[in-house]
Amino acid sequence: MTLRETERRQFLRLASAIGGGVLLSHTAAAAQVARAEGRAESMTLFEALEKRVSVRRFRSDPVPRQDVEKILRFAQLAPNSGNQQACRFLVVDDRKILAGLRQECVRGREAVLRARGEDIPQIQEMKGYFEGVFAAPVFILVLVDKNVQYKGYTDKDGSLAAGWILLAARALGYASVFFTDSISEEICRSFFKLPERYSRTCIIPIGVPAEWPARPPRKALQEVVFLNTINA
Amino acid sequence: MTLRETERRQFLRLASAIGGGVLLSHTAAAAQVARAEGRAESMTLFEALEKRVSVRRFRSDPVPRQDVEKILRFAQLAPNSGNQQACRFLVVDDRKILAGLRQECVRGREAVLRARGEDIPQIQEMKGYFEGVFAAPVFILVLVDKNVQYKGYTDKDGSLAAGWILLAARALGYASVFFTDSISEEICRSFFKLPERYSRTCIIPIGVPAEWPARPPRKALQEVVFLNTINA
Repeated sequence: MTLRETERRQFLRLASAIGGGVLLSHTAAAAQVARAEGRAESMTLFEALEKRVSVRRFRSDPVPRQDVEKILRFAQLAPNSGNQQACRFLVVDDRKILAGLRQECVRGREAVLRARGEDIPQIQEMKGYFEGVFAAPVFILVLVDKNVQYKGYTDKDGSLAAGWILLAARALGYASVFFTDSISEEICRSFFKLPERYSRTCIIPIGVPAEWPARPPRKALQEVVFLNTINA
Repeated sequence: MTLRETERRQFLRLASAIGGGVLLSHTAAAAQVARAEGRAESMTLFEALEKRVSVRRFRSDPVPRQDVEKILRFAQLAPNSGNQQACRFLVVDDRKILAGLRQECVRGREAVLRARGEDIPQIQEMKGYFEGVFAAPVFILVLVDKNVQYKGYTDKDGSLAAGWILLAARALGYASVFFTDSISEEICRSFFKLPERYSRTCIIPIGVPAEWPARPPRKALQEVVFLNTINA
């Protein structure tokens, strides 16, 4: 759903009249309203860190190109080894291409499930999973050029840039997820004919979430922090 | 410099009386004032992404434990593979231990420089470099437990958690840097007797910066972004 300017204003008036915070939540309209009001820009860092969760089921509402560009401009600010800037970003928003990629994912996974002797419900579930994932209108492949002076840091650089993408997307009201094996490097490599010089850190769908799921629980700090010495 | 509550109030009054925005900038006092006023909490995500730069020269002003704890609580929210939570954090704020680590870094680097036949000025410069780095009162080693079910993602997870640390530190007014070889994994492994099961993603000094340097220039977006197809 994309609102025209007049519709947007009407929507804002209406939403404010009915105090529609709940009604608005998690829709493209809400993201648009948030952007229109400058709220997206003002999401605090701590709020973004709190609110970013991995989402695997999207709505098909569009993500405008200027938002993708903004996200990528921030990704460019992530720290990287020796300012080599080995990261490359393959943005995919062509619906036909995405449909083809989804087909490849389903085909690959179906072969695995059938070989394992899984039942039709499992296969249907898998198809539903990819339907939810590929409802997202934009995917960003984070690639790193292995053809750089200081090797061995590129996957760290790719992960950092990916993290910046997840957060910038969140502040703009979009959901995302850092995918590795769900849409494997191998499938991406053959589907997009990725040149050998690039390795792929991850692929990130970006879109309006079907819902914002709860974050899986984390360990208590004392389980993961050592102070001054490690006694494990 | 740590201010007591009464000193802090006096300082705030004084600062406000003289309109001391410039005077205050980049000092521990400024960070304290920012925290006292809740400004740290309200740094926007985009501001944090813009303002985070790699800093290698610190002041010795303290970083309170509760700030380190806060930073680590946010690091725990970073995405990770299958919620395995393989990341571990070794916080080092013992001055003697840090002095020992610095000595190891200097010794290792001096041996390399002497073997290369470098002159005394180079060696002095290197020592000055580590003096600037180790003025930081807190270091966090980001470790990942290799002893997990899904292997092969841990360095990505470590890098993401490290990114969250850099950003959370920035919002609290602190500088940091993602170090790999400047303080090598090998030195850390032997100095801290890191168990074999942990690999080290990076080590991050956290402190008040001597100054906020400019970010090294980044490539234009069109040099790093491909749209729908890769033609490299």
